[in-house]
Amino acid sequence: MKDIITLAHGSGGKLTHELVREIFNKHFANDTLLQGNDATCFDVPQGKIAFTTDSFVISPVFFKGGNIGKLSVCGTVNDLAACGAHPMYLSCGFIIEEGFPLADLERIAASMGETARECGVKIVAGDTKVVQKGAADKVFINTSGIGVVPAGINISGSNAKPGDKVIITGYIGDHGCSILLEREGLDISSDIQSDCAPLSGMMGEVLAAASDVHVLRDPTRGGLGTTLNEIAIQSNVGIRIFEEKIPVRNEVRGVCELLGMDPLYMANEGKMIIIAPEASVNTILEVLKKQRYGVDSCVIGEVIDTPAKRVVMKTVTGGSRIVDMLTGDQLPRIC
Amino acid sequence: MKDIITLAHGSGGKLTHELVREIFNKHFANDTLLQGNDATCFDVPQGKIAFTTDSFVISPVFFKGGNIGKLSVCGTVNDLAACGAHPMYLSCGFIIEEGFPLADLERIAASMGETARECGVKIVAGDTKVVQKGAADKVFINTSGIGVVPAGINISGSNAKPGDKVIITGYIGDHGCSILLEREGLDISSDIQSDCAPLSGMMGEVLAAASDVHVLRDPTRGGLGTTLNEIAIQSNVGIRIFEEKIPVRNEVRGVCELLGMDPLYMANEGKMIIIAPEASVNTILEVLKKQRYGVDSCVIGEVIDTPAKRVVMKTVTGGSRIVDMLTGDQLPRIC
Repeated sequence: MKDIITLAHGSGGKLTHELVREIFNKHFANDTLLQGNDATCFDVPQGKIAFTTDSFVISPVFFKGGNIGKLSVCGTVNDLAACGAHPMYLSCGFIIEEGFPLADLERIAASMGETARECGVKIVAGDTKVVQKGAADKVFINTSGIGVVPAGINISGSNAKPGDKVIITGYIGDHGCSILLEREGLDISSDIQSDCAPLSGMMGEVLAAASDVHVLRDPTRGGLGTTLNEIAIQSNVGIRIFEEKIPVRNEVRGVCELLGMDPLYMANEGKMIIIAPEASVNTILEVLKKQRYGVDSCVIGEVIDTPAKRVVMKTVTGGSRIVDMLTGDQLPRIC
Repeated sequence: MKDIITLAHGSGGKLTHELVREIFNKHFANDTLLQGNDATCFDVPQGKIAFTTDSFVISPVFFKGGNIGKLSVCGTVNDLAACGAHPMYLSCGFIIEEGFPLADLERIAASMGETARECGVKIVAGDTKVVQKGAADKVFINTSGIGVVPAGINISGSNAKPGDKVIITGYIGDHGCSILLEREGLDISSDIQSDCAPLSGMMGEVLAAASDVHVLRDPTRGGLGTTLNEIAIQSNVGIRIFEEKIPVRNEVRGVCELLGMDPLYMANEGKMIIIAPEASVNTILEVLKKQRYGVDSCVIGEVIDTPAKRVVMKTVTGGSRIVDMLTGDQLPRIC
């Protein structure tokens, strides 16, 4: 096999089969994947199915804390976890630019395999397309995922109730800020790295301890500000957050100030918003704080009656500010 | 909404929501899609699940007989049908180049909705990314699909048995040839159009009449020649086909001769290879010939013991020729 991707790797012929065998099957290894048919067949346990899809176009492809491969598994696993589902099966579709180094593709595939194993999901279906040089930027990955929702779990963005508390599972803005620094080639020395992480294991523990969680959602593109707005609209409630309680690293705050960005709209790839009745908050925090990806969890706000469909922030200076959805795009290709 | 796609349409913020509401939700309309959560939840009937994914990067985006949207639904529905599954749910992930006309995106979405309704599948999950001008070529679409395999059906590329007959459901090479003509701007006036079609309804009828079908596979990228090789390898058998029996339109044959292409390797997007015991062949052909997409079905060959893992063609001149897998890529971005 040559050391770069050629159009023939996407032909469906000999080189496609070689690529699948020597890179994808090697790193994603599982029996279900190896069926080799147009679709993959398997049994799923009884229960409601959750299904989601996400395409990843992040630039750069490799970044501090991860790469597009790890991100593509985390993103879809986290979307399933955000429905209270136990993720089981993933598909992955690659669109690769002619000339992309095979060694880089293998690093990406290895990350995907490793992350999938960490959260116990199997990559069982795949597709590879190659486009000519200049028709795509390096590599894009779509992952779709299937999970099973345990009986008794009913999580939805429309379930927030006045009186509920709003928890965030850690520092916000790390992913967006780290990508921004890498991309702009800014002369800022920084330890900020993407928070990219699979949260399904942690969320499974939370739901086992507190099955009355109302809403889960991971604040990726658009950040905490946009995601809370989505929930407020879907549930027809208001959400009040307290600026002083929102965990933002000093470095992230500094970079945002310098560049005129707002951490509230910076993407996260390893955080979950949890909205739950007050009575369950302590139990949930106790579970979260024992988890690798949840040690910095805290309550940042509450669900209120009015103003409905609005997010309001009490600022550190004592004022009140409406937090709207992101308009425009402060940072394209963040995921 | 402006009349072209901007980076803000991919931000996850206000314009993304507007785009989803005004284009995708409108054309894909179904209750399951409108749940509005990170993943979509639904019940599936008892039985084995089939799962598949495909990315579509075809150029040009609009072509005679279809467009990338129709193709993206047909491709995934046909992959499910090729496992004997009844397709139920699709996801779709768009990667769109900044500047792409909204009117074109709406035509694509309308085609997807229409094709999905034709075969009774619901588009229930989606994702939209926008990349800057030059970072992708117009629009790429990933669809992933979930289907249910009825009890008693056991279809796999590894099930071909010596003595089985090989059926093709109509003329080969139409899709590849039509795209080639459109793309190259050749001065050939032609009525050839893509055969792009959803085959799940027809295949459901076939399996209801003959549940002992051994292999189904749609010969897309790589064409009939490559796909038969895949089956011969998977089943560890030989496959003998008869050149004179393979349906190729005169126009397709002419264009291929002119350009030094081989119809055996030209992509199809609305054909199925069916391998079944001889005893069931008449029943299957009877069902196929009553179907809109199967009227030109015929037997083109048979499964043999040796040479194993080889496809052999008896030529019209009485000779024998090994048909290998496609090497290289005769036509990139055909799907």
